[in-house]
Amino acid sequence: MLGVAVLGAGRIGKIHAGNVALNPRLKLVVVADPVAEAAQGLASLLNCEASTDPVAAVERDDIDAIVIGTPTDTHVDFMLQGAEAGKAVLCEKPVDLDIKKAEMAADKVERLKAKVMIGFNRRFDPSAQELKRQILAGKIGDVRQVIITSRDPAPPTPAYIKTSGGVFRDMAIHDFDMARFFLGEEPVEVMAIASAVTEPYVKELGDYDTMMILMTTASGKQCHINCYRKAVYGYDQRFEILGSDGMLQNANLRPTTVRRYTAHETEVQDPILNFFLERYVDAYRIELDLFAEAVQKGTPMPVTVRDGCKALRLADAAVDSVTTGQAVKV
Amino acid sequence: MLGVAVLGAGRIGKIHAGNVALNPRLKLVVVADPVAEAAQGLASLLNCEASTDPVAAVERDDIDAIVIGTPTDTHVDFMLQGAEAGKAVLCEKPVDLDIKKAEMAADKVERLKAKVMIGFNRRFDPSAQELKRQILAGKIGDVRQVIITSRDPAPPTPAYIKTSGGVFRDMAIHDFDMARFFLGEEPVEVMAIASAVTEPYVKELGDYDTMMILMTTASGKQCHINCYRKAVYGYDQRFEILGSDGMLQNANLRPTTVRRYTAHETEVQDPILNFFLERYVDAYRIELDLFAEAVQKGTPMPVTVRDGCKALRLADAAVDSVTTGQAVKV
Amino acid sequence: MLGVAVLGAGRIGKIHAGNVALNPRLKLVVVADPVAEAAQGLASLLNCEASTDPVAAVERDDIDAIVIGTPTDTHVDFMLQGAEAGKAVLCEKPVDLDIKKAEMAADKVERLKAKVMIGFNRRFDPSAQELKRQILAGKIGDVRQVIITSRDPAPPTPAYIKTSGGVFRDMAIHDFDMARFFLGEEPVEVMAIASAVTEPYVKELGDYDTMMILMTTASGKQCHINCYRKAVYGYDQRFEILGSDGMLQNANLRPTTVRRYTAHETEVQDPILNFFLERYVDAYRIELDLFAEAVQKGTPMPVTVRDGCKALRLADAAVDSVTTGQAVKV
Amino acid sequence: MLGVAVLGAGRIGKIHAGNVALNPRLKLVVVADPVAEAAQGLASLLNCEASTDPVAAVERDDIDAIVIGTPTDTHVDFMLQGAEAGKAVLCEKPVDLDIKKAEMAADKVERLKAKVMIGFNRRFDPSAQELKRQILAGKIGDVRQVIITSRDPAPPTPAYIKTSGGVFRDMAIHDFDMARFFLGEEPVEVMAIASAVTEPYVKELGDYDTMMILMTTASGKQCHINCYRKAVYGYDQRFEILGSDGMLQNANLRPTTVRRYTAHETEVQDPILNFFLERYVDAYRIELDLFAEAVQKGTPMPVTVRDGCKALRLADAAVDSVTTGQAVKV
Repeated sequence: MLGVAVLGAGRIGKIHAGNVALNPRLKLVVVADPVAEAAQGLASLLNCEASTDPVAAVERDDIDAIVIGTPTDTHVDFMLQGAEAGKAVLCEKPVDLDIKKAEMAADKVERLKAKVMIGFNRRFDPSAQELKRQILAGKIGDVRQVIITSRDPAPPTPAYIKTSGGVFRDMAIHDFDMARFFLGEEPVEVMAIASAVTEPYVKELGDYDTMMILMTTASGKQCHINCYRKAVYGYDQRFEILGSDGMLQNANLRPTTVRRYTAHETEVQDPILNFFLERYVDAYRIELDLFAEAVQKGTPMPVTVRDGCKALRLADAAVDSVTTGQAVKV
Repeated sequence: MLGVAVLGAGRIGKIHAGNVALNPRLKLVVVADPVAEAAQGLASLLNCEASTDPVAAVERDDIDAIVIGTPTDTHVDFMLQGAEAGKAVLCEKPVDLDIKKAEMAADKVERLKAKVMIGFNRRFDPSAQELKRQILAGKIGDVRQVIITSRDPAPPTPAYIKTSGGVFRDMAIHDFDMARFFLGEEPVEVMAIASAVTEPYVKELGDYDTMMILMTTASGKQCHINCYRKAVYGYDQRFEILGSDGMLQNANLRPTTVRRYTAHETEVQDPILNFFLERYVDAYRIELDLFAEAVQKGTPMPVTVRDGCKALRLADAAVDSVTTGQAVKV
Repeated sequence: MLGVAVLGAGRIGKIHAGNVALNPRLKLVVVADPVAEAAQGLASLLNCEASTDPVAAVERDDIDAIVIGTPTDTHVDFMLQGAEAGKAVLCEKPVDLDIKKAEMAADKVERLKAKVMIGFNRRFDPSAQELKRQILAGKIGDVRQVIITSRDPAPPTPAYIKTSGGVFRDMAIHDFDMARFFLGEEPVEVMAIASAVTEPYVKELGDYDTMMILMTTASGKQCHINCYRKAVYGYDQRFEILGSDGMLQNANLRPTTVRRYTAHETEVQDPILNFFLERYVDAYRIELDLFAEAVQKGTPMPVTVRDGCKALRLADAAVDSVTTGQAVKV
Repeated sequence: MLGVAVLGAGRIGKIHAGNVALNPRLKLVVVADPVAEAAQGLASLLNCEASTDPVAAVERDDIDAIVIGTPTDTHVDFMLQGAEAGKAVLCEKPVDLDIKKAEMAADKVERLKAKVMIGFNRRFDPSAQELKRQILAGKIGDVRQVIITSRDPAPPTPAYIKTSGGVFRDMAIHDFDMARFFLGEEPVEVMAIASAVTEPYVKELGDYDTMMILMTTASGKQCHINCYRKAVYGYDQRFEILGSDGMLQNANLRPTTVRRYTAHETEVQDPILNFFLERYVDAYRIELDLFAEAVQKGTPMPVTVRDGCKALRLADAAVDSVTTGQAVKV
């Protein structure tokens, strides 16, 4: 079993720490967070040590792997500290909001041949995995078009927006990664349009909440992403992949399969799962397990720091396209 | 009952003539086509007169309305002849492949206050009508994004492509019209990407078969259209409309509702209806009926020549965007 | 073209007369109903003759086929008159409420080798036809169980109930026919339970509105039918056929495919088609066409008077089972 | 936390032991099975003690609750030993194959006011719970008809059949329990038909594999159950509840939501989950948790030994009905 330190005891740190505790390949040794109560609370729930010093936690001899769930601007530092200390690293997305810093980190990780995985959780959703498996198995022939629908149930707070790097780098980064995952080829051109129409503060803060993106690859594959930050009917996460021999789709998830038919309503179902912590509960668990398996077996990381950089480059290109009204080469 | 002349006894003329024959508001008087056997065959089937002289047919005193199903490059001539002769006109799309000629026709029709309707049949599909009705009834609040999926089962012949005006003006023209129909507001900017990946002759003829389009309106509403000309699973025609208070979708149609579950297949359904003559059989019938009703009641034409021009303008803009890699203002 | 007289200008007579008028194999010559206004109204709508003397209409030399849509207690008389006069006959179900009279009629029709078809419309629904086609094609192997769900949206009036012969002979007769259609083998034993729980007058009149039936065939195939007369969500008409190699189902029909998702409702669809005139519009049309085709080609009637008797025998057996609490042999 | 002994380390014992180990209300102390390797293997996997003496395990002071997953003919003995020793008991279904012994056990448990729950797992499936919740909330008014579809993917072995008590007491016992759960009222009459058509040994052993059941309650509510032991398309577990104000259904579960459309297949989905260990994984977990919660809070057991007896009485009545061809009063 690999000894694990989880850095960060916030919302995402809790998810990862719980999954580490339940994973038979891993042993949760310590949860580290500068906020003592957060670290202590999570540690006592999961029966492990607490620490207020993440830097020290990384260095411990009984730690083989670290999971980084700290604020974005600390990702690169912890990642590189871990990489240099010979630890395996699972780091939450994004690598960084600055593409130069992110690429410097990727370069260093590659030079060190370190085991660093970026936590693009959506790839590990069972339906996303099955879509990819069917593509690779040739079930729909050559991929022609990928269509990604990505809608949050509600916009984030003004405070969140201010430090998020903007909706393209914060929210759509997942969609850029999924586009690469399904296209199986790098986008070479990006076009995007964006508007802010939900809460007034989104516009005031210079951000967007309603976006559409087009991308094309060298061989002529195409991808469309649509994003919206206030889908009142829930967290809408759908993929459609059109190929030369067929088409694939997934659907949203609901807690039960019950349907009701009455005089005034036909086919009332449970609402779709409302946000990422519920929707991607399996994905986070599988992501961690595949990380642990790759570390144990010495196989390549399922998602690399370079993947994280490429998604960020696409996000930057989309921002440029919105600003200039032109297709942006990547 | 209005006396009707159907011009053109080809594939689309047959559809219209059959619908005229069954419509209680209309009396099918004559089918006119320069190809005598075509006119005669259709006329004897539907028990009306045949003519090889469409121009003469338009002028007959017992004709109140004409339905134009002739080649595209004759649309404007017949339309204006009919308008000047005081006949009501239902003309197949497109108005013309040349925006200047189309707009000249629209101007003239407006000056004459003539009753001329363009046959954008998809608007009259019962599900499309219901989508529009729910939008107008405020069921999903303000429209934010419209997503149109439009896929043909197979690319047309090289001969067809040569005179079609290109896939944007021929196929996507329907989608531009539907975008305007659902957005309820004019697009002011168009971006498009296109490739040719199905049959080699598509590329050789300088046309495309795989396209994605983005459009935005002055108020920030967005629209995505994706087109493909070789969807092996059938004629895929779907709409999705996202609003501030909800989301609407339609689905493809199948001949029956039968589903089969076996050891090797789960949920085998009938294939979706394969092409426009089957898929839009109701739409063509309703289109004609609403035309007849509007003529009888003196209410505005459901789709005007100006609508036809506006869709064509968007198609032209899309072609420009593919060529220049820039957003094109409309 | 076959000259047709439609007997009865009520609800069902109108359906049949309209279909005759539109069928290219048939010519609607006369509509006959003792109620002069009814006959006249329908005749003028469909542009044919009206008569108040159905008996005389049957005998006309220009009549090749008659369609009987008169009250149940006149079915046998008109059927036999037509058969003896050498006319083809399409007679609405049931043959008669009295099994002896019905079997006498079947005997006579068989002796005369007359062309008489009973109008069990549900067999001709496109989905029912497809289910049967797949069974015959061996898609699900040997049939094991047939499950029929048959629910009306609202109970009939007291006046209707009094002359209907009871819900088993009036409503479930269709389901007994469909059971035979899908089983492909005669039921030999019937069990049934029934209660009256919707409107008080159903119980007061000695009828039922909530029933469940079991049937078994000699080889051990099984069938369940459930009926209810007040399904508030609409006219529910579903079949499920379990076989050794798979399972088949159909679904209810809706006017459009539109689905709506909002904060308070997920997946609102159109209500299902509400009653038989809308639900089975295609079935009535196809039924008539297959009748006409069989008459023209001299092939066997798709549904015989004997079929009508067999369904009635099962209904009688179900009534006996409810009364005695025992399985009833047929 | 309650100390728990799991009796039986076979297929079902493993499920329960795993759930105990993960449940924060429970502490897995010991797994007891006369087969030493089975007990030892499971114990080492779950990090608890192993024992070959279930009787001794029940008596331990550090054991507050026992989970019985031993062969059916030992259920009553362990249940009563536990009850007399003041332990809470979760016992797998059925209570016993002999109704007299089962009712004796129920009497004794009631006299002792012991906490004994019978493991009818299907009640705890999230969709079944939601169906019940909506019924209790009045969402469909008064229940009129309950329809239960219960099909196994393959018949059990001859060895299993010999000791199973027959398919009505072994397989359909779950369905009788679910009927009571949804009807909310006791069935007073049972009718059943049965045949053996899958594997020859089923018939040779005097058992059935294809059954249909009708039940009625004092107030006229009705229930239909259909069972089959060789559904090639998978483990089919569906409920439909018709009420005065609406209708409820659940659906089968699949591992992902992916759908594929190709030229030869439309809408290929994942197969449905194949058998009870996968299908009811959540149900077993929730069952155990509600048991633990009821023990801790001192609230009534969610399913009592008396419930187990009532389901068995219905199974016995169904067997009688098949034999006699008559409705059997309960």
